[in-house]
Amino acid sequence: MTGVRKLEHATMAVTDLEESVDCYTDVFGLDELDRRDGVVYLGCGLDENYDLALTEGGTGIEHFAIRLTDAEIDAYERRLADTEADVRRTDGAEPGQESGVRVSLPSGIDVELVSVADTRYLHPTKATADRLGVAPLDLDHINLMSDAIEEDVAFLEDHLDFDVSDEIVEEDGSTVQSWMRHGRFHHDAGFTRTDDPAETLHHIAFQFESFDHIKLFCDRLAQHGYQLEYGPSRHNAGSNLFAYFWGPGGNRIELSAEMATLDPDTETGVRVLEEESNTVSSWGGSPPKQEFLEKGS
Amino acid sequence: MTGVRKLEHATMAVTDLEESVDCYTDVFGLDELDRRDGVVYLGCGLDENYDLALTEGGTGIEHFAIRLTDAEIDAYERRLADTEADVRRTDGAEPGQESGVRVSLPSGIDVELVSVADTRYLHPTKATADRLGVAPLDLDHINLMSDAIEEDVAFLEDHLDFDVSDEIVEEDGSTVQSWMRHGRFHHDAGFTRTDDPAETLHHIAFQFESFDHIKLFCDRLAQHGYQLEYGPSRHNAGSNLFAYFWGPGGNRIELSAEMATLDPDTETGVRVLEEESNTVSSWGGSPPKQEFLEKGS
Amino acid sequence: MTGVRKLEHATMAVTDLEESVDCYTDVFGLDELDRRDGVVYLGCGLDENYDLALTEGGTGIEHFAIRLTDAEIDAYERRLADTEADVRRTDGAEPGQESGVRVSLPSGIDVELVSVADTRYLHPTKATADRLGVAPLDLDHINLMSDAIEEDVAFLEDHLDFDVSDEIVEEDGSTVQSWMRHGRFHHDAGFTRTDDPAETLHHIAFQFESFDHIKLFCDRLAQHGYQLEYGPSRHNAGSNLFAYFWGPGGNRIELSAEMATLDPDTETGVRVLEEESNTVSSWGGSPPKQEFLEKGS
Amino acid sequence: MTGVRKLEHATMAVTDLEESVDCYTDVFGLDELDRRDGVVYLGCGLDENYDLALTEGGTGIEHFAIRLTDAEIDAYERRLADTEADVRRTDGAEPGQESGVRVSLPSGIDVELVSVADTRYLHPTKATADRLGVAPLDLDHINLMSDAIEEDVAFLEDHLDFDVSDEIVEEDGSTVQSWMRHGRFHHDAGFTRTDDPAETLHHIAFQFESFDHIKLFCDRLAQHGYQLEYGPSRHNAGSNLFAYFWGPGGNRIELSAEMATLDPDTETGVRVLEEESNTVSSWGGSPPKQEFLEKGS
Repeated sequence: MTGVRKLEHATMAVTDLEESVDCYTDVFGLDELDRRDGVVYLGCGLDENYDLALTEGGTGIEHFAIRLTDAEIDAYERRLADTEADVRRTDGAEPGQESGVRVSLPSGIDVELVSVADTRYLHPTKATADRLGVAPLDLDHINLMSDAIEEDVAFLEDHLDFDVSDEIVEEDGSTVQSWMRHGRFHHDAGFTRTDDPAETLHHIAFQFESFDHIKLFCDRLAQHGYQLEYGPSRHNAGSNLFAYFWGPGGNRIELSAEMATLDPDTETGVRVLEEESNTVSSWGGSPPKQEFLEKGS
Repeated sequence: MTGVRKLEHATMAVTDLEESVDCYTDVFGLDELDRRDGVVYLGCGLDENYDLALTEGGTGIEHFAIRLTDAEIDAYERRLADTEADVRRTDGAEPGQESGVRVSLPSGIDVELVSVADTRYLHPTKATADRLGVAPLDLDHINLMSDAIEEDVAFLEDHLDFDVSDEIVEEDGSTVQSWMRHGRFHHDAGFTRTDDPAETLHHIAFQFESFDHIKLFCDRLAQHGYQLEYGPSRHNAGSNLFAYFWGPGGNRIELSAEMATLDPDTETGVRVLEEESNTVSSWGGSPPKQEFLEKGS
Repeated sequence: MTGVRKLEHATMAVTDLEESVDCYTDVFGLDELDRRDGVVYLGCGLDENYDLALTEGGTGIEHFAIRLTDAEIDAYERRLADTEADVRRTDGAEPGQESGVRVSLPSGIDVELVSVADTRYLHPTKATADRLGVAPLDLDHINLMSDAIEEDVAFLEDHLDFDVSDEIVEEDGSTVQSWMRHGRFHHDAGFTRTDDPAETLHHIAFQFESFDHIKLFCDRLAQHGYQLEYGPSRHNAGSNLFAYFWGPGGNRIELSAEMATLDPDTETGVRVLEEESNTVSSWGGSPPKQEFLEKGS
Repeated sequence: MTGVRKLEHATMAVTDLEESVDCYTDVFGLDELDRRDGVVYLGCGLDENYDLALTEGGTGIEHFAIRLTDAEIDAYERRLADTEADVRRTDGAEPGQESGVRVSLPSGIDVELVSVADTRYLHPTKATADRLGVAPLDLDHINLMSDAIEEDVAFLEDHLDFDVSDEIVEEDGSTVQSWMRHGRFHHDAGFTRTDDPAETLHHIAFQFESFDHIKLFCDRLAQHGYQLEYGPSRHNAGSNLFAYFWGPGGNRIELSAEMATLDPDTETGVRVLEEESNTVSSWGGSPPKQEFLEKGS
């Protein structure tokens, strides 16, 4: 039930809105909380906050949000005013949202800082919806494709107090992958380098309670005709358990559990990219296909 | 997924049929498979066989069934013909049932021997229904209240090849509780001594995958307004994990997992009844109320 | 693996040091990291930091520590200088500790703010010790007996930025129990009111990975002759799973999992004390004995 | 705790006896029960029966044993006397063994029928050894490499009452793989076709409690320098969860959980071999390398 103070929600484009909504509600067990202006708001059902919003047409991420207090949001707004970035108030723009400030990263993806109306802590016996037992607990993190990865990382460090938990660099020091945290979880947002500006998302990850629930969900996916792309196994970076598949609407989805928590003084882990077969998994096993390492949506 | 060759199904009376059906389908996640002559047939959804049938009016057990091959059923029918017991063929009398032979125990409860049409083995990715992740896998066992406990035990031993796995006796050797197996699970049918001929059932038990799933189901019960009577903990007899509550329609229900399996040559465990506070649990903890030890439905 | 930024360690008195060390190493699977001046330092083995220190003679808690950065510790030291409390530097006083500041609560129990040398994040495949699979992951929280509960709570709120997550009060508003957090977990330190100044500890809690691991540990405790006092079940306050027993050396121990995380803006939950049978558990079941509610060490 | 009446034990050759014993005791947590005539007998520690015996030199399987009652063993001995197979009594030849009859399969591998002295049922709180929490519960099954696969299968069917649960055949009907059961578990012994008479073993499998325990054991393997060859995932045939690695001494080991149970009347599943990438896993994911499908020890 470690559900809060990390990635709060995200808005994602899907190639087929109704088919995607059906899958997220029927297979994932999410609740449809609201529809406004063509956006469908879905929640995991432990509280009234939405976790994932879907829009019709295309693929990839439109914005993602970190949850803060109103005072913290105001303070960041003042700091962002000193940058050249495009900054907007989005108070009340989404269901359950109170304060909101949105800013565009150098690569063009929007980050939002929000406070929410429902601030309860999650208690399994007091869930707001009639949840499937194996449903995701929460949105866990997001991993973006960026054609300006170093600028994006620097922006989040300099203006929004994110820290780099782990990174993979070339021998010349240029960044290939970066995992960044705002709170205590190893990463709220990761970045994968791309040359294709049309790609914005490597994957979006849902938090599951345990490896056993990832198992139950893989059974459920197979029953509904979805096959995994890679996993399950345990990641080297972040130590979280994972399984990946291409979900409805054209985006890659990760099932995640046991993400590590870090202290503010934990040092950044840096690895130099090697031509190894499988540095993605701590356990070994069959390596992912090259497409997994390079392709997003 | 160890689901077969133990208690196959049971028929139970409930004080309010529709309320009970709603609870078993909405909260337990069972599937309504059929309705015939006022009997509602419910299944756990991994295959097409029914697990629990409900009838309107009263409480307690009407009959329970063990699954066998047609040849085994015929052989038992011939053996039972030599007793004075009331023996009937019930071929095809219930949904999915092929052969059937039913016989009354000395206490009046009916035992049925059945073969079924759907003999597949259970594969989680090939479940026949869209199951809740935390739903019961199967009916696990039944524990009866008997005013003729020694006669019932002897009948099952002598004519149907049941073995006593564990028993609790008075100092004079008279039986207080008995746990009996037909297959390899520690008990398919247990017996608790009563002086009240109106009581037939101590509890009916559903098999859950793990202690974690018992946890999820306790959360679910609390969300729906049901509180536990006793547990969760681990039993001394059978080593299974347990949690008890009074379900809809007036019968006690057990959530069970990790029932031990026995070999044919495992000796019967005999304990003399003592005035101890908690011999029910291997872990200790708050003991059950006296009502738990004595009262059925 | 959500192990950091909550209770960092505690020092506890035990009636028999060697017997207690044997139990914590053999049964709990903790590592003995160091012995200095009669104090034995034990760690859970995922990193090199100690979690529990034991001293010979008596029972109860001597001090507990919260982990911070050096800069945070310095800032709190300056704030504490404005109070009348006894404040001391304890830099390097314990194994693996760097900065340290210790201050006495009104009831006399010491709170320590520490930074540590080993700031890695926990990765199961990189544990520093050869851990038992079911061993505790970390110290989880501490629950103190206080004869100055309202003063203790006010001190932690006013000078060390703790928040009250939940509390139980009398009808006149006086505090019976309080659960306080410094980071994001529902409680790092709880308080139970007592009239007995000799009692300082209600229980010390270890974090387990899951309800399944609590099960395995209850099996292990039974195998080694320890019986539970109460549980397992799920708490109303904090939503964590629990099981309690009296450990070696005369102190109550809790096995805990799934502690809720809160946001800074989550409101305090207040309940008025009632004569209910079981408000401790969200699931019901057999209530705890009165001794559980009132007696510490 | 479903531990009995399937594969009882096996004897395996290893290239380095002491290194292998160290790994099986230190990493797997098995107990060394006895050494006789160069054979080391190891047990999982829930009862006093041995599960795996190791001999120095070479790789592969020497014999495997199924547990029966004395009367059943005598009956099979009489039936086997009518064949041309080499049949021997092995009463008391191994630690804890009572009756024993051994016979050679057409491919040369020995099958043993045994009864044992310790017939208790497994109770986690009454384990005979101080077990690691994540240690295997029991030997689960064995998968043999056979250069006479159809003759081996026919022998086990005709003379020892094994049934084929699933098989994979060529288009011409010749057998590629076969999974056979004597009791109720989907397979006690599997067979993989080979042209190399020097290979006898595809893998030996240990039973783990759950997918979560497979996870813990994969963490433990990584900590000790072992990397997985394939998995974890869920098998199509048998529905069991799996993870494979090359263990010490040159043999492949499977970690297994949730093996399906079958009824005597469950029909054999037959699949025709296809050039598909991954029919091994129900979930998809990265397929195994060709070596996994063809190479044994």
